Amino acid sequence: MNIIEPTLLLDRTKCLNNIRAMAEKARLNNLIFRPHFKTHQSREIGNWFRKFGVEQITVSSLGMAEYFAAEGWQDITVAFPANLREIERTNRLAGQIRLNLLVESVEAVQFLKRRLRHRVKVFIKIDSGYHRTGISPENSTAIESILQKIDSADLLQFAGFLTHAGHSYRATSRAEILQVHQQSVSMMRRLKKRYGSRYPELVLSVGDTPTCSVAEDFTGIDEIRPGNFMFYDLTQWRIGSCRPEQIAVAVACPAVAKHPERSEVVLYGGAVHFSKEFLLMPEGEKNFGYLVDFGENGWEAPQRCCYLKSLSQEHGILHTCPTHLEKIQVGGLVGILPVHSCLTANLMKSYLTLEGERIERL
Amino acid sequence: MNIIEPTLLLDRTKCLNNIRAMAEKARLNNLIFRPHFKTHQSREIGNWFRKFGVEQITVSSLGMAEYFAAEGWQDITVAFPANLREIERTNRLAGQIRLNLLVESVEAVQFLKRRLRHRVKVFIKIDSGYHRTGISPENSTAIESILQKIDSADLLQFAGFLTHAGHSYRATSRAEILQVHQQSVSMMRRLKKRYGSRYPELVLSVGDTPTCSVAEDFTGIDEIRPGNFMFYDLTQWRIGSCRPEQIAVAVACPAVAKHPERSEVVLYGGAVHFSKEFLLMPEGEKNFGYLVDFGENGWEAPQRCCYLKSLSQEHGILHTCPTHLEKIQVGGLVGILPVHSCLTANLMKSYLTLEGERIERL
Repeated sequence: MNIIEPTLLLDRTKCLNNIRAMAEKARLNNLIFRPHFKTHQSREIGNWFRKFGVEQITVSSLGMAEYFAAEGWQDITVAFPANLREIERTNRLAGQIRLNLLVESVEAVQFLKRRLRHRVKVFIKIDSGYHRTGISPENSTAIESILQKIDSADLLQFAGFLTHAGHSYRATSRAEILQVHQQSVSMMRRLKKRYGSRYPELVLSVGDTPTCSVAEDFTGIDEIRPGNFMFYDLTQWRIGSCRPEQIAVAVACPAVAKHPERSEVVLYGGAVHFSKEFLLMPEGEKNFGYLVDFGENGWEAPQRCCYLKSLSQEHGILHTCPTHLEKIQVGGLVGILPVHSCLTANLMKSYLTLEGERIERL
Repeated sequence: MNIIEPTLLLDRTKCLNNIRAMAEKARLNNLIFRPHFKTHQSREIGNWFRKFGVEQITVSSLGMAEYFAAEGWQDITVAFPANLREIERTNRLAGQIRLNLLVESVEAVQFLKRRLRHRVKVFIKIDSGYHRTGISPENSTAIESILQKIDSADLLQFAGFLTHAGHSYRATSRAEILQVHQQSVSMMRRLKKRYGSRYPELVLSVGDTPTCSVAEDFTGIDEIRPGNFMFYDLTQWRIGSCRPEQIAVAVACPAVAKHPERSEVVLYGGAVHFSKEFLLMPEGEKNFGYLVDFGENGWEAPQRCCYLKSLSQEHGILHTCPTHLEKIQVGGLVGILPVHSCLTANLMKSYLTLEGERIERL
């Protein structure tokens, strides 16, 4: 491969397998599969989902919604608390596609009621234990006032309850992920029990990659919205959501210097390519990515003896074992599995498939 | 200001003052001022430097060098170990401008000798204690072999020794920054003493923002290459390189939800806007940015009671004091000083000056 600078490699086969497995799980469990497109942010990769029957998608900003709407996606959930400052953008989009928004306060609903020009569906954002944002499912007063306000607005339709059990990322095993799932899902089910007769169409939407990857039982849930699963990464491997051979992206980095006295290789690949997310290692060191060797069909299993120990803007410092220190040449190319593929993909301008095709993104 | 999404605000006056102060320090000390343009990556902001007599610049990639060369910059140092895989790009640029590269191995020089088509100057990268990359100044054998190889190549000219004392970022006070400076500079001076008679034109180039901001004595040094100083940020404030009122960029973020029970406000502003760099707080909490109130002339002093305690892809969770919790409204705008302005600027697509001018970047 004629790669001259840090390049995000995409193994299309692995990626399609990841999508297929999740689509299949959704089908078996009678779930709407509404994948989160913030992970790839690419028109072309988005289209790969169509062959698995996907017609409804999730994004995290109105900008992304516009981008995918232009590609023909007609049913988009912006899984982020409605940003009132973007009301004109919201109105434009709501006039073109079926737009679903998130609300979690009476003020936001009031504002939308006053300013919306087209019909939108709104989910109430529920905090099922992550404590990032959303309303506690026990807070019936708040939920009731929001529901009343929604019902009083002609252009607003209550879609259901939506949660992101992001505390699954703090798990250290599949068992812990399952615990998060069960706890989060049972909270959501109670909401359906309470409001289901009043809103028979209400949708329960859940959606982090760890629980969607590990759980098999989605009883009572209507929709899943995972995003990261299509690429996976070292974080997901570490907590037990995936096997290393499912990771579908790697960054190819030129080696630019060697420092045998420190067992280090300097890579062209830094914080502007990987982001600054890291795994903590047993002895407290930071790990910004494991090395992979390139083989005939892309890259091979990660080498746990070789990892990025620090990143500055463009430099990555690779800690190596003696074998790799010997093998890596200045001017050669090194593969690195990213710690957080969503942030890495967001930083890189495009993808390069193993077949050599360049894929653009937003 | 009609700001609808996370927006990087630039206080042009503060920025020009930062540039003026550094240019003045360089002039007083008879130093070449070769600012690092990786911080702003903007054609237009680059041009602001011209009025301070700047004609020579530093960048961290060939892509950036091409971008600024197209804007008329004729003397550019790529302060990154020469990436041999980009030899064609290097040749194209070297045919257009005065290009200065960094080398730190005989292999790299041999490769350049074989493949270069136009004259370039090369600096030998010296490790003055940061231990990221470069050759130890004590390693005369390595330096000597590289020099011999450079001298044997018609198209290579030895420019001098270059270092980045990045360990100044680990300082916790101005005194410690000065220590790093003195130690690094005295290493560099010894190199001049050793090689100055053989290469009377050799340049000693140093260049991190902390030491360039704090030090007054640059005896023996010929060139400085700071970058971050033009914006500064919370990291620089924390270690003592700047005063908070010198910080020239802030991110304006829409508030999208409030959680009084946790003293938190949810901002539209996450890892894809700020990067994941953080300050460690006394009790071990992470701080991804301090809040600033907006006043008549931009933003005011940082509020140390309000800081971003966590970031996910698009969400920022602001820990607030009671006063600010009361004051911030859903739909309102909040200012945040970034922890690392270079990474934040790299993530944002453009700047918005306080006068309302949109400034594009690479």
